[in-house]
Amino acid sequence: MSQKPSIPKGMRDFGPSQMARRNFIFTTITSVYQKYGFMPLETPAMENLGTLTGKYGDEGDQLLFKVLNSGDYLSKSTASDFSEGSKTLLPKISEKGLKYDLTVPFARYVVMNQHDIAFPFKRYQVQPVWRADRPQRGRYREFYQCDADVVGTDSLICEAEIILMIKEVLETLGFTDYSIKINHRGVLTGIAALINAKGKESDLFVAIDKLDKIGLDKVCEELIRKGFGQSSIDQLRPILNTTGNPSEVIEALRRPFKLGQVDQKGLNELVEILGLVEDMGDSLNNIEIDTTLARGLSYYTGTIFEVKINNVAIGSVSGGGRYDNLTEVFGLSGTSGVGFSFGVDRLYDCLEELKLFKDSSLIFSKILITHFDQESLTYGLKVLTQLRKAGITSEVYPDQAKLKKQFSYADKKGIPYTITIGSNEIESGQLSLKNMQTGEQNSQTISEIINRLK
Amino acid sequence: MSQKPSIPKGMRDFGPSQMARRNFIFTTITSVYQKYGFMPLETPAMENLGTLTGKYGDEGDQLLFKVLNSGDYLSKSTASDFSEGSKTLLPKISEKGLKYDLTVPFARYVVMNQHDIAFPFKRYQVQPVWRADRPQRGRYREFYQCDADVVGTDSLICEAEIILMIKEVLETLGFTDYSIKINHRGVLTGIAALINAKGKESDLFVAIDKLDKIGLDKVCEELIRKGFGQSSIDQLRPILNTTGNPSEVIEALRRPFKLGQVDQKGLNELVEILGLVEDMGDSLNNIEIDTTLARGLSYYTGTIFEVKINNVAIGSVSGGGRYDNLTEVFGLSGTSGVGFSFGVDRLYDCLEELKLFKDSSLIFSKILITHFDQESLTYGLKVLTQLRKAGITSEVYPDQAKLKKQFSYADKKGIPYTITIGSNEIESGQLSLKNMQTGEQNSQTISEIINRLK
Repeated sequence: MSQKPSIPKGMRDFGPSQMARRNFIFTTITSVYQKYGFMPLETPAMENLGTLTGKYGDEGDQLLFKVLNSGDYLSKSTASDFSEGSKTLLPKISEKGLKYDLTVPFARYVVMNQHDIAFPFKRYQVQPVWRADRPQRGRYREFYQCDADVVGTDSLICEAEIILMIKEVLETLGFTDYSIKINHRGVLTGIAALINAKGKESDLFVAIDKLDKIGLDKVCEELIRKGFGQSSIDQLRPILNTTGNPSEVIEALRRPFKLGQVDQKGLNELVEILGLVEDMGDSLNNIEIDTTLARGLSYYTGTIFEVKINNVAIGSVSGGGRYDNLTEVFGLSGTSGVGFSFGVDRLYDCLEELKLFKDSSLIFSKILITHFDQESLTYGLKVLTQLRKAGITSEVYPDQAKLKKQFSYADKKGIPYTITIGSNEIESGQLSLKNMQTGEQNSQTISEIINRLK
Repeated sequence: MSQKPSIPKGMRDFGPSQMARRNFIFTTITSVYQKYGFMPLETPAMENLGTLTGKYGDEGDQLLFKVLNSGDYLSKSTASDFSEGSKTLLPKISEKGLKYDLTVPFARYVVMNQHDIAFPFKRYQVQPVWRADRPQRGRYREFYQCDADVVGTDSLICEAEIILMIKEVLETLGFTDYSIKINHRGVLTGIAALINAKGKESDLFVAIDKLDKIGLDKVCEELIRKGFGQSSIDQLRPILNTTGNPSEVIEALRRPFKLGQVDQKGLNELVEILGLVEDMGDSLNNIEIDTTLARGLSYYTGTIFEVKINNVAIGSVSGGGRYDNLTEVFGLSGTSGVGFSFGVDRLYDCLEELKLFKDSSLIFSKILITHFDQESLTYGLKVLTQLRKAGITSEVYPDQAKLKKQFSYADKKGIPYTITIGSNEIESGQLSLKNMQTGEQNSQTISEIINRLK
């Protein structure tokens, strides 16, 4: 008896053409990471729940996929655990969960291997993560993250290198119009101090984070509703209103910060990072200082990054920042780190929307050998061997079938060339090479074909 | 408060040097798969339990990792479900499991996408799978499989290509002494018919499968205990005793099969496969016909493969076979397929035991730039940019630190060269390049260094 197969909701298969395009993205990202001295790491899909729980807030804990203990998983639980409900029963029946991001497992790895690691430790990690979120367009329950982090140094060279890596990845992928937005926790704290938002920082940051979407006036209205005074708003307006190149934004912050005797460390670090980018021979093109950028503020302690592809209505494709306390929860303090991540699904959608994928990335086999009968198939196997030895990815249609069916296979698979073999070809050694796109056909020897297509 | 971090048992982190070696194995395997026209596929980590359950036998069902439904997972269950125990409660609280192998999800994919796939469909898949097995040396709860399968053809060219791919992968990895054992379900059935084992086939195959480990006499003793008659044993002995090159083994089977009027289809297919290997320009070196090879007999319907690295006490590193009914359970019949898989962990262990890993695979950054002060660090950033632009993976020590500390970082990370920058170097443009292994030091311009190391 057969069953109708299905795939869990929010999860996806990636067939050959999607894989080819995704692999192009992965290869581009990892090549750049490697060029900058980052080394690969992989951690298991599952972590002990103790490692994961409490790291992502209450909502995050809800979104963890929990794995049932194996065997008789109820053996440690009682009827009263059951009657008290899901939350009480959980620790009795599940000890492990699927990882929710790559950062917490990385922190666990660093702490467990701290005596073998050469610090500063630069690692990259490209793996899937899982979140039991409600699936919707662009939001999946299984998706890849591509992280690069350095831990064990507070050098701002790391921040500058992150900017360079983001530029190199995006430009290699083919993007030209994008914005790398940077901010600093110290700038946010400074703005809060400037307008006397003590104790109301999170209301402030939540509101200004919406500037992009709702505009300055609505942000100010929201702040007044939240109890901010008119004088605070008056001080805030010109700061949030400042756009332009990075040095203009810094200048616009510098004066009020000085007047308000606000700590300028955050501003100074941004200035230093931009100087380092220039020291490393790059320009400040595509870099913006965005004083409204917050991104999970409780986590970042220094620079904050976010990257958008302009003119594509998709959220950020990359983000990150510096965190001073990443490994503290696992018992290792004083290892400041900075890292960022690319979202592969969003990069994919942007590349698709901007038609930046090259068709050539979809070619798997270059040549299909087609044949009329057993004899030509046998001869075809020898031709096939020569092509493969020359490094030309090729295949033979494995069954005896009508030529039309063989050609249709090449067509469906996007194989750009066919070689058809019959008794004439065997006799003369002149093979018929057909360009499947143009229909053009040539008689050539196998070595001529190899020279042409190699 | 900090917690001592740990990793779930049977699961592993792969640090940079293990990753480099594993990636060498993965890249070798996937390059060969691609060369033979196989296309990449990825399926999700989780499948609906209905897809997985009942496909791997009772023991397999036990070993599936089950994922708790998200949210209030007890909402569909009653106290009586709980009191009836783990088995009754399970379907009420868990709908998904982690994939146990790559074959069943592949079959699910083929059936769900049958109208878009160009058959014969050649796919490869390199992903982790999970089994809640008792962990022990060489057995993990999370491990990678590297599968390649063709479905939609019964052409024996596929079997011949599998043999060629196995050879190419193993030889590219550096193995020379290995055995590709092949057998055929029809040969096993033939042997059973020959000695009148009707109804006792599985006792027979379980016994002869142990020949390698316990020897012929013990196998025969076991068969007698299981109720086989002396005349059966007498017929079996010479067959199992036959070793030598493939054609000798086939000859040794041909005569008794003919005398016993046993169907020779299996034998003929083996002969044809070996002929195809030769037609494709390869030799029969390293290929053995092994009449005792069974490998999950209920599954394979034609050829059976298994590969061992000789002189290494590790089980098979690869295995596979032809199956006629793979997709039938999901409602698609008549799509014969043949496939095989490499075990990455075992290949890794064999390569390590035979010292076949090249140290060069462990080099990440080629050059570390070291410096004395802020000025030389800034100058170093410009040098760094030039090196990277020339495609030389390099990094700068990001902090101001004693030279000794910087060198020790290079050493620990296995970076083979350092460039040290001080005021003399800045003035003269002659940089000091040090080979970290030999200690040799040279003064060279940046372009000389690039030419030398590129």
